[in-house]
Amino acid sequence: MNQPTAQHTVFFVSDGTGITAETFGNSILAQFSVKARHVRRPFVDNGEKARQLVREINETGQREGLRPIVFATLVNREVLNVVRQECQGLVLDMFGTFIAPLEDELNIKSNHRVGRFSDIAKSQEYHDRIEAINYSLAHDDGQSAKNLDSADVILVGVSRCGKTPTSLYLAMQHGIKAANYPLIPEDFDRGAMPSLLVPHKKKCFGLTIDPERLAQVRNERRPGSKYADLMNCHYEVREAETMMKKAGISWLSSTHKSIEEIATTILRDIRPDRLMY
Amino acid sequence: MNQPTAQHTVFFVSDGTGITAETFGNSILAQFSVKARHVRRPFVDNGEKARQLVREINETGQREGLRPIVFATLVNREVLNVVRQECQGLVLDMFGTFIAPLEDELNIKSNHRVGRFSDIAKSQEYHDRIEAINYSLAHDDGQSAKNLDSADVILVGVSRCGKTPTSLYLAMQHGIKAANYPLIPEDFDRGAMPSLLVPHKKKCFGLTIDPERLAQVRNERRPGSKYADLMNCHYEVREAETMMKKAGISWLSSTHKSIEEIATTILRDIRPDRLMY
Repeated sequence: MNQPTAQHTVFFVSDGTGITAETFGNSILAQFSVKARHVRRPFVDNGEKARQLVREINETGQREGLRPIVFATLVNREVLNVVRQECQGLVLDMFGTFIAPLEDELNIKSNHRVGRFSDIAKSQEYHDRIEAINYSLAHDDGQSAKNLDSADVILVGVSRCGKTPTSLYLAMQHGIKAANYPLIPEDFDRGAMPSLLVPHKKKCFGLTIDPERLAQVRNERRPGSKYADLMNCHYEVREAETMMKKAGISWLSSTHKSIEEIATTILRDIRPDRLMY
Repeated sequence: MNQPTAQHTVFFVSDGTGITAETFGNSILAQFSVKARHVRRPFVDNGEKARQLVREINETGQREGLRPIVFATLVNREVLNVVRQECQGLVLDMFGTFIAPLEDELNIKSNHRVGRFSDIAKSQEYHDRIEAINYSLAHDDGQSAKNLDSADVILVGVSRCGKTPTSLYLAMQHGIKAANYPLIPEDFDRGAMPSLLVPHKKKCFGLTIDPERLAQVRNERRPGSKYADLMNCHYEVREAETMMKKAGISWLSSTHKSIEEIATTILRDIRPDRLMY
């Protein structure tokens, strides 16, 4: 009955935020060439809400004539029981599946605690993340050269090559204090790295970008300007790459990469210690 | 042999960024009262790297006398085979486990495509996220009242109650254009919502915070100031809450909540449409 062209509805169901269910579920769905409608249902944390949700799932299935797919990260036993017994969707019980083998391996029982993200809020790690966000904001676009000593990473590159989103992501996801510093035409005229960066060369990481893509992005900002002109973009990118090569700074192109991939590469190359914690 | 007090090493292994393996693995580990050493190994995308990784895992197990736990999101078949055949850790194959039942349900084969996050980089959704980050940065701390029309959400609350990290998270994770606007003593003297916000009341969401926590946070910034004074923090929080109540704005306390939880609550309350996509 299931035809690959029909559109399934996928539910991400959790007694917490549902972020884990969604991240993981989307990774799995990316392995299939199907279009799906996504519905996230967070904070389903009692039997009443569970029954309401199950009604919604079952009605969706009947209306669409296709069994919904349900990615569930449920810890609350009452909710889990309602979903297991009454839900007519294909339930992929993400916690249940892996908790049993881990209980065997660790030789202890799991504690069925809901809401990892609320435990996080009290931790040192969380405090560090918030501090890192504040640091990265204060050191965006070279606006403060103070405290570059305490930066974990300094991103360099021409204006609009992706430094700001990447440094905020490094801060938010990994608690990395990421400053960023633009390379500007004056630096190219001088033919040398900004002198402020020289003592910190080891923690500098460069971003570059395809000049055509750069011109496009800059034109959204300042249409028709010299700043956005394609020839000028070619010039700036070439000069920046030459400068980074000369200085021996690692760099990558952001053109076809997501901030997640760029951030992971930077961690691996500049702060491999942060891959272990 | 496994004693709950011993420290296991947990590997997060992926041929992509490893973010999915880590998010999901940490959610599962949060169900156990164990301390573990975490090691993330991203971009393991060929047999050579796989064999090197498996050597590292097996040596860790021998050295520590405890079988490592391996959360794997592997799509590359060559890598998966090396890990399945040679790894002596407890391999929790997160993709393999759920892809088979989905293949049956969808009646199509999965495509074994590596790197969801690199597909993302080309999508409209990704472009919208980057736009939202730029918007949220430009509308941080009430610095621009222009374009509040195009805000999806406007966060309000006293200085340092968590507005900035929350709006950046909403932008980065959900592509939500989140402006934020501080409530300041002048607003309390006037006894009315800032007039700029009045036409946008429906998309305003308030954050509040425990006054003692606020005084602590502000003291890190400006020690001994009136701004950080506990009595003043009590006053500002009370006035802000009264104002939000009067204006009929939903709000929550950020004191014991992570930005992930706050963001999910805001989405559910202000933009439930964004839970479906």
